[in-house]
Amino acid sequence: MTAAHVALIQYSCSNIKSENIEKAEWFIEKAARDGADVAALPELFNTTYFCREIDQHFFSWAEPVPGPTTELFCNLAKKLNIVILLPLFERKAAGIYFNTMVVIERDGTIPGIYRKMHIPDDPGFYEKYYFTPGDLGFKVFDTSAGKIGTLICWDQWFPEAARITALKGADILVYPTAIGTLPDESVTDKAEFSDAWRTIQRSHGIANGCYVASINRVGTEGGTTFWGNSFICGPFGQMITEMGEEEGVQIAKVDYSTIENHRQIWPYFRDRRIDAYKSILKRHQ
Amino acid sequence: MTAAHVALIQYSCSNIKSENIEKAEWFIEKAARDGADVAALPELFNTTYFCREIDQHFFSWAEPVPGPTTELFCNLAKKLNIVILLPLFERKAAGIYFNTMVVIERDGTIPGIYRKMHIPDDPGFYEKYYFTPGDLGFKVFDTSAGKIGTLICWDQWFPEAARITALKGADILVYPTAIGTLPDESVTDKAEFSDAWRTIQRSHGIANGCYVASINRVGTEGGTTFWGNSFICGPFGQMITEMGEEEGVQIAKVDYSTIENHRQIWPYFRDRRIDAYKSILKRHQ
Repeated sequence: MTAAHVALIQYSCSNIKSENIEKAEWFIEKAARDGADVAALPELFNTTYFCREIDQHFFSWAEPVPGPTTELFCNLAKKLNIVILLPLFERKAAGIYFNTMVVIERDGTIPGIYRKMHIPDDPGFYEKYYFTPGDLGFKVFDTSAGKIGTLICWDQWFPEAARITALKGADILVYPTAIGTLPDESVTDKAEFSDAWRTIQRSHGIANGCYVASINRVGTEGGTTFWGNSFICGPFGQMITEMGEEEGVQIAKVDYSTIENHRQIWPYFRDRRIDAYKSILKRHQ
Repeated sequence: MTAAHVALIQYSCSNIKSENIEKAEWFIEKAARDGADVAALPELFNTTYFCREIDQHFFSWAEPVPGPTTELFCNLAKKLNIVILLPLFERKAAGIYFNTMVVIERDGTIPGIYRKMHIPDDPGFYEKYYFTPGDLGFKVFDTSAGKIGTLICWDQWFPEAARITALKGADILVYPTAIGTLPDESVTDKAEFSDAWRTIQRSHGIANGCYVASINRVGTEGGTTFWGNSFICGPFGQMITEMGEEEGVQIAKVDYSTIENHRQIWPYFRDRRIDAYKSILKRHQ
């Protein structure tokens, strides 16, 4: 796979799961009609961002993988001949729930899943209450739309996650996301946050000589405003496509064949001092 | 030390060491007069960027540490009551040469040195010919102008170097640099390179919740044009000061007291998955 058309899909969610599922289906169908090889959805694609609150009720939204929702999208993937990256709230067992991304191939099979490794916990983002930290490590899936490194939201702030995923062979790092501003945060805060959010992800493209795709939700949920701005950038952090704050789908061609030339010119992988990185495994020193 | 005035000093170099030394002295004196606590010089402060060529003759420019040059600047530091970060070509022994930064305290003592860990080797940047890779690991110096993490140029492209240095307690990562464009590189290339250069370093501030200072030389040497643009950014990657492409000194106040609050709001250090990073020690997998 030397290139792929990647569709970023961003939308707002309601409290009614079936509505969110229909919306996702509608956008994936549009993406497929417009020539996408892979459709990437935002984090927790079929629910509101319920982690805004701590409420036991929301555990009822978790679902098994495979399960009815993945079956629906496996069928859709097969019908449309498209790879789907489906991030959802996974119920593994009573008391064990993950923030998961399901990778679905064009033939409707599931090559595997990724479970979010880094779990945030901050005002309005109480994820440690809901999600067990990922237990599968960092993952790359060699799909018919490229070697896709699967990461989720908070993972995007950790260079280690990007590095390990890239070393495992990812051509593109994909970050479904739910990031926005709280009611008491200003326009200046938002500008600073979104700039840092964009910068740290672009830096993963630069440090690892690979592509990065980030897919954020839009809309306001209980005062939290998600800022969209889904984007794809290249191996030098250069923006290839970038969305606004409206619902929609945007497709960009990602040319994986540029990666090797880029890494020959900027040979970071050659020069890493793996003999001297051991203390990165410490909490502090 | 809760804050410091950091002076970025950028200038062009000639083939005559004494001229470059005089220029550095002049700028450090100006920085001290203008209230700087620490003066940061560009990589290989008293020579041209000789790594443009492979020529045994240039080994004669290497010098011992401590030696006549460090003695000169230790005296200057004491006279001016200023911390000096002095990057130079170090001769350790016959056949062992390093790209080194000497940390000089206000009292004229040398608390230690850092030897560049990541050594590039690309057209016009033939550093592997001259420099033995650093053998001291990543370093932080608790100086009277703050906890300074010492890194050099090519190190700036490696998130591991920034992370380990920040975990060792750095409030500010300082990158003396020699980066520019070759004669056959276009204005577009330069814009893309310098944007990536700025972005990757800003990302280290973001990922680690600390300050970053980068000091580049200016001027043209045998066709290579160094682009200056020395800068300091904050823990969210926000630009605090940024220079152009002219010689000069620019001083900015760096408020280390913001770091703890910032890291409480953006608690990446709390959430690092140190149990899952082991494969970062591999070349590839």
